[in-house]
Amino acid sequence: MADVDVVVIGGGLAGLTAARSLITRDRSVLVLEARDRVGGRLESVRMREADAVLDLGGQYVGPTQHEIMSLLDELGVRTETTRDTGDHVVHLGSRLLRYAAEPKLSLLTMLDLGRTVRLIDSTARRIPPHAPWSAPSAAKLDAQTFAEWLRRKGFTPRGRALLAAVTRAIFAAEPSEVSALWALFYVASGGGFDPLTATTGGAQQDWIVGGAQQVAERLAARLPVRLGTPATAIDWSEHGVEVAAGGMTVRARRAVLAVPPPLAGRLMYRPALPPDRAHLTQRMPMGSVIKVHVVYERPFWREAGLSGQAAGDSLPVGMVFDNCQEPDGPGVLVGFVDGAHAAEASRLDPERRRAMVIRCLATYFGAQAEHPIGYVERDWSTEPFSAGCYGAFGVPGTLTRYGKALRDPVGPLHFAGTETATRWAGYMDGAIQSGRRAADEVDLALR
Amino acid sequence: MADVDVVVIGGGLAGLTAARSLITRDRSVLVLEARDRVGGRLESVRMREADAVLDLGGQYVGPTQHEIMSLLDELGVRTETTRDTGDHVVHLGSRLLRYAAEPKLSLLTMLDLGRTVRLIDSTARRIPPHAPWSAPSAAKLDAQTFAEWLRRKGFTPRGRALLAAVTRAIFAAEPSEVSALWALFYVASGGGFDPLTATTGGAQQDWIVGGAQQVAERLAARLPVRLGTPATAIDWSEHGVEVAAGGMTVRARRAVLAVPPPLAGRLMYRPALPPDRAHLTQRMPMGSVIKVHVVYERPFWREAGLSGQAAGDSLPVGMVFDNCQEPDGPGVLVGFVDGAHAAEASRLDPERRRAMVIRCLATYFGAQAEHPIGYVERDWSTEPFSAGCYGAFGVPGTLTRYGKALRDPVGPLHFAGTETATRWAGYMDGAIQSGRRAADEVDLALR
Repeated sequence: MADVDVVVIGGGLAGLTAARSLITRDRSVLVLEARDRVGGRLESVRMREADAVLDLGGQYVGPTQHEIMSLLDELGVRTETTRDTGDHVVHLGSRLLRYAAEPKLSLLTMLDLGRTVRLIDSTARRIPPHAPWSAPSAAKLDAQTFAEWLRRKGFTPRGRALLAAVTRAIFAAEPSEVSALWALFYVASGGGFDPLTATTGGAQQDWIVGGAQQVAERLAARLPVRLGTPATAIDWSEHGVEVAAGGMTVRARRAVLAVPPPLAGRLMYRPALPPDRAHLTQRMPMGSVIKVHVVYERPFWREAGLSGQAAGDSLPVGMVFDNCQEPDGPGVLVGFVDGAHAAEASRLDPERRRAMVIRCLATYFGAQAEHPIGYVERDWSTEPFSAGCYGAFGVPGTLTRYGKALRDPVGPLHFAGTETATRWAGYMDGAIQSGRRAADEVDLALR
Repeated sequence: MADVDVVVIGGGLAGLTAARSLITRDRSVLVLEARDRVGGRLESVRMREADAVLDLGGQYVGPTQHEIMSLLDELGVRTETTRDTGDHVVHLGSRLLRYAAEPKLSLLTMLDLGRTVRLIDSTARRIPPHAPWSAPSAAKLDAQTFAEWLRRKGFTPRGRALLAAVTRAIFAAEPSEVSALWALFYVASGGGFDPLTATTGGAQQDWIVGGAQQVAERLAARLPVRLGTPATAIDWSEHGVEVAAGGMTVRARRAVLAVPPPLAGRLMYRPALPPDRAHLTQRMPMGSVIKVHVVYERPFWREAGLSGQAAGDSLPVGMVFDNCQEPDGPGVLVGFVDGAHAAEASRLDPERRRAMVIRCLATYFGAQAEHPIGYVERDWSTEPFSAGCYGAFGVPGTLTRYGKALRDPVGPLHFAGTETATRWAGYMDGAIQSGRRAADEVDLALR
C-alpha cells in the first residue's frame, strides 16, 4: 500500500516526464511500470558484434522536435547525424533504381511524388492538431480510409504502391487501416510530409548515441519508479484513485495514464469510464513493426558509393538506413518491416524471417549483404506491454466521434502518451509534450 | 484453486453452450463469469409498470435460426410474434410517412431501397462466411468503409442517409466505422438483407416470452458456473492453462474464451499471444447502443391503425417496435438508439436522454406518446463486461489480415462467441453455433 499525490501508470517518456514535472512542484509521485525496465517503446541493447548499443525501438530525433532536443541537451546525451551521403536505392515493382541523395528531401519525396506531397501537405495544413475533429472536412475525411482517399485523388496503382510504402514507414500500418483524417492529423502534428519522412531536415535526421533508452533511465534515476508492477484495476471517484498493480495498492489524489490508448483500455475501471473513452480505446489499434539490425564486418555499401538508405514498395523490409555507430566500426543496417509485411513476417519462424530480411538487403545492396556477422530483431507485436508499435492510430470514425476523449480528463484520471500530443504525436517529442501537459493539468487540479 | 478439463471464460450463450456440450461428453468444466448473473448480452428485468419481463439486451429470434429455435424448444421456452399488423411510420429528413405493412419485407426494404438490397445481397452472396478473406474482392472491400462502398455505388445523399439508418440498426455502428467486407460478411452470415432486417420472415420475427436471459439461466442451472469471477490472466503452454480470476486460480487442460474479441484482448496472456491474435482483438470494437422500453397505459398506436414499428434516418431512436407482452396489457414500445446517436445520447444526463427519447416517440406516434407511465434504458457502452453492443465488428483491414485469428485456436486456447460464428454471427443463434464448435474442437484435442 502506497499513498501519494499522483500515481503515474507507465514508465515511458510520457510518464517519466509527467512524474518529473510534478516532483519539481512538490507533489509526491509514484510511477508504476509493468516491465522490468523503464523506457516503454524505447529499448536499447548492447550488441557484441556491432560493438555498440543499438535501439530496438525509437532512435531518431530531428529539427523542430524542441522537447526532446532540449531534454537531450539537459541530460548531456549526444546525437549523431544519420548518414545521408551517397546514393539511395529504391526498389519499385521489380526494378532497382539508384538516386543521388538530395538534402532535405526524403528518399520517397525525390521520386515522382511531388504532387502527392503538395496535396497531403495542403490538406494537412487545414487540420488543427489540437482538435482535428473540427477541421472543415473532418467528417468526410474520417469516414474513409487513407487508402480510399489516395485512390480518390486519382493516383495510379504505382503511385499508390509507393504511398502505401510511405504509410507503412510512417504508421507501421497499411493505408487501408488508417482513417484519412488521422493520417492527415499526424502529418499536421509533425509539420508536414517532408519533416516526417526525411533524414536531413526531418524526423530521422539524428540518432541518439548510446541508445534512446538511456534518456528514460536518466530521468528515472531520480524518480520513485516501481518496476515489474503492471496496473490492472483503478477504483476512482472525484476524491481520488486506488490503483491495483502487481499485488500492491496505490492510493492517490490523481492518476496519469501514460500508456497507449489500447493498453489503457485493458484496465478495469470502477466505475466504468464514460462511453466516449470506452469506445475510443477500442478504436485505436497499434501499428505492426519488426525492427532489425544487421551487422557486417564493414559498411561495404559505402565503398559502392551508397548511403545505406533504401526503400521499396513491395519488399518486406520497406525502409533501411545506415546505422553504423562508429565511423570505423562494423557496418550496421537498420531495417523496418512494417504493416502487412510485419503481419506476414511474424508468422515465420525466426530462421526463415532472418533469411527473408537478409535476402531483402541483398536485393537492395548486392550479394555482400548476404554475409552478416550479427542479427537482432524486435517484433513489437509480441510485447504485451506495447501491443505493437510505433504507436496507436485512429481507425475510420474514431477521431470525429470519440477524439475528444483522447485527452479530456475523467474525474481524477488524466491521459498522457505520445498519441495524445498535438506536436509530433507518435514521436519521443510528443511523449514529452504529453507528459508536461498532463502534469500541468494535475497540478492545477490539486491546487 | 480448481482443477478441470476445460475452463470456460464467459457465461453468455456461447460459453454455456460450450460447457454443456463438453459435460455431455464427460469432460469436467468450470465456467467463469465476471458478472453476478449469467447471460452476457442477454439481460431481462421485471418491469412493474409493464407488468412484464422486458429484455434490456437481445430479445429477437427468427426463421433459419435453427440453433436457438431448437434450444428454446428443448428448454420449453415460448416465443411470440412481433406485431406486424397496421401501418408503419418512417421519418425521412423532416417528413413523416405512413406505409402499409407488407409481410416478409422489412420497413426499410419497403422504401425505395430495392436496388440497394439487390446489390448488397448479390455482393454478400460471393462472400463465404467461414472465410470472408478468401472472397474474390476481399482486399478491395476490406480497404474501404461501408460508407465509402455505398458512396461509390452511386447512392444519393438521401439513399445514403437511409442506409446509414439501416447500418445503425444492424451493427449499432456507423457505415463510416465498419469495413465493407465485414458488413457484407455479416449480411452473408444471416442469409441476406431481408432476413436480417425484417420482422415477419426475419431476425425480428419473434420475441422470447419471459425474457431471453432465462435461456442462459436454464442452461446454467445444471452447469458449474462461478459468478462474480472476472478472469484477468492466463498462463498457458501446450500442456494446459492456469487462469487467474477474481482471487482464484483455475487449472485446466484447455480453455474456451467465450467473450467478445475486444474483451478477450484485455486479459494478460503469458506467454503473449501471437501477433495476429493480438492485433485482431485491437481491431474489433463493439457497437454503441442504448435500448429503451417506454411503457404506456394502453398501446394507443394500435387505435390509430399503426403497427408500432417506426424508423428514421436522422432521429436518435432509429428503430421502434411494438413490445407489448400481453394482448390486453400496458402498451410497450421498444426503441434503439444506435451508433453515433448512442454516442451523443450517452453524453446527456439521464433526464435529458429520457426526454429526448420520448420526444422522438411523439414525432413518430403523436402527442399521446408524451405521457408514458414507465421508462427503462440500458446503455451497453457503460457495461465493462460487454464494452458495447450488439457485437464487435471488423474495422477496415482487419478481416483480410487478421481474420483467421478470430477462430483459430492458439495452443490450448479456443475462441467462441457470436462474433466467431459463420451463421448468424452477432445473434443468439451464432453464439450457440460458436459454443458447439469450440466444444467440438476441445473434445477432439482432449482425446
